[in-house]
Amino acid sequence: MQNHENNYIYGKNPVCEILLKNPKRINKIYIQKGIFYDNRLKKINELAILNKIQIQQTNLQKFSEYFNDKPNFQGVIASVSSVEYIELADFLNQEKQGFKRIVILDEVSDPHNFGAIIRTTAAAGFDAIMVSNHRTAPITAVVEKVSSGAINHIPIIKTTSLSASIDILKKHDFWVIATQMEAKDNYYEIDYTDMNFALVMGSEGKGISKTILNKADFTVKIKTNFESLNVSAAAAVIIYEAKRQIEIKEKPKSL
Amino acid sequence: MQNHENNYIYGKNPVCEILLKNPKRINKIYIQKGIFYDNRLKKINELAILNKIQIQQTNLQKFSEYFNDKPNFQGVIASVSSVEYIELADFLNQEKQGFKRIVILDEVSDPHNFGAIIRTTAAAGFDAIMVSNHRTAPITAVVEKVSSGAINHIPIIKTTSLSASIDILKKHDFWVIATQMEAKDNYYEIDYTDMNFALVMGSEGKGISKTILNKADFTVKIKTNFESLNVSAAAAVIIYEAKRQIEIKEKPKSL
Repeated sequence: MQNHENNYIYGKNPVCEILLKNPKRINKIYIQKGIFYDNRLKKINELAILNKIQIQQTNLQKFSEYFNDKPNFQGVIASVSSVEYIELADFLNQEKQGFKRIVILDEVSDPHNFGAIIRTTAAAGFDAIMVSNHRTAPITAVVEKVSSGAINHIPIIKTTSLSASIDILKKHDFWVIATQMEAKDNYYEIDYTDMNFALVMGSEGKGISKTILNKADFTVKIKTNFESLNVSAAAAVIIYEAKRQIEIKEKPKSL
Repeated sequence: MQNHENNYIYGKNPVCEILLKNPKRINKIYIQKGIFYDNRLKKINELAILNKIQIQQTNLQKFSEYFNDKPNFQGVIASVSSVEYIELADFLNQEKQGFKRIVILDEVSDPHNFGAIIRTTAAAGFDAIMVSNHRTAPITAVVEKVSSGAINHIPIIKTTSLSASIDILKKHDFWVIATQMEAKDNYYEIDYTDMNFALVMGSEGKGISKTILNKADFTVKIKTNFESLNVSAAAAVIIYEAKRQIEIKEKPKSL
């Protein structure tokens, strides 16, 4: 009952992209026997060697049975594992020019919201999403579909304890921003441009757990005239307010 | 096969609320025979008379069969029709202190997105949503559920021609803002505070149709690092940027 389509990525650009963004997800690369190596295939070859990924020259025809339509493989297929999570320590060790920005999901269990937030976070160019091992929606086909492929473009940090991981983040100079309806400050009243930060979003029903709220350096609210926002809309509003501030700072308006 | 639960609203506050917000949806109000009229029932009685809605004194017990759980009717039930649309002319004739702000959906056919945008638009305190008769998701149970009740808190203007209705809006001093990936201006570079405006969102696949783009006074983009935003996330980002600007203008920061 395995869905093979989900386990293969084909075409020169898609394979190249996953080699660049998330090579750890690739198990093996298959290249059409006897094919002419154009620049993109050469690049795939190079990146595979660099990432110590095995390349097998073979007849790609045999993969056709795994697909419903007749795909044009363009001579290259990557066999990939399901989304790979990275360790918090590895994420913190990654070098980056400038500040790191992540989103933490505290028990967001609805797959539509999870997928939507992954998509928005990747679109805004944030660096990672952190979720708890327990009580988070598993990355199902729905999550992948709603994320619109973004799941491969942003690392997911999975942790056994959000609370302990937040302590580690704070030791590494991250500021923790929690959303809460009762907060005093509006979400646009803090300066997102000059710090590493972790934005915590809670589940719609329960909000953010008390333990985590207590660790927050800032709590912010989004004013509403009727009820509250959906958690993925709320995430979009705050994430893009941060991005707006960053864009304006990086490229001052010439007036 | 009718779902009766969807056709009745009960309880003093919910009935009072729909009487205030959307009396046109109410067909009839049933009040428990012999009940003592407290202040809220008196108010319901008054509002019903004001809106020429029939009141029937009866034994509410008979309605119990329509509900799965045993609801506490609090002595009052309103029989409601499905969401009522308002005419553009009626919307334009409504008096309002200050500017009117609406969202126009051009062929947004996904019910999740439709419901989510209704919820965000109502939460931001906008005045209406305009959709086309054709090619819009019908207001199904999914739309109502995702909107989280917001559907009763914001008027829906349904029109046979978005294009013609936009012309009418423009004659009534509305500025039309369209979202387009290729736009020159960022969505946060226009001033939303000093005009009536209609924000047009297009479908994810096709974007906004050319005819409507040509009528736009502004086109704006949202920058993304990876792909585009989901249409409901994009709507949330722009709607709340407008709200942010309005909030700041209305209540200047004391520095």
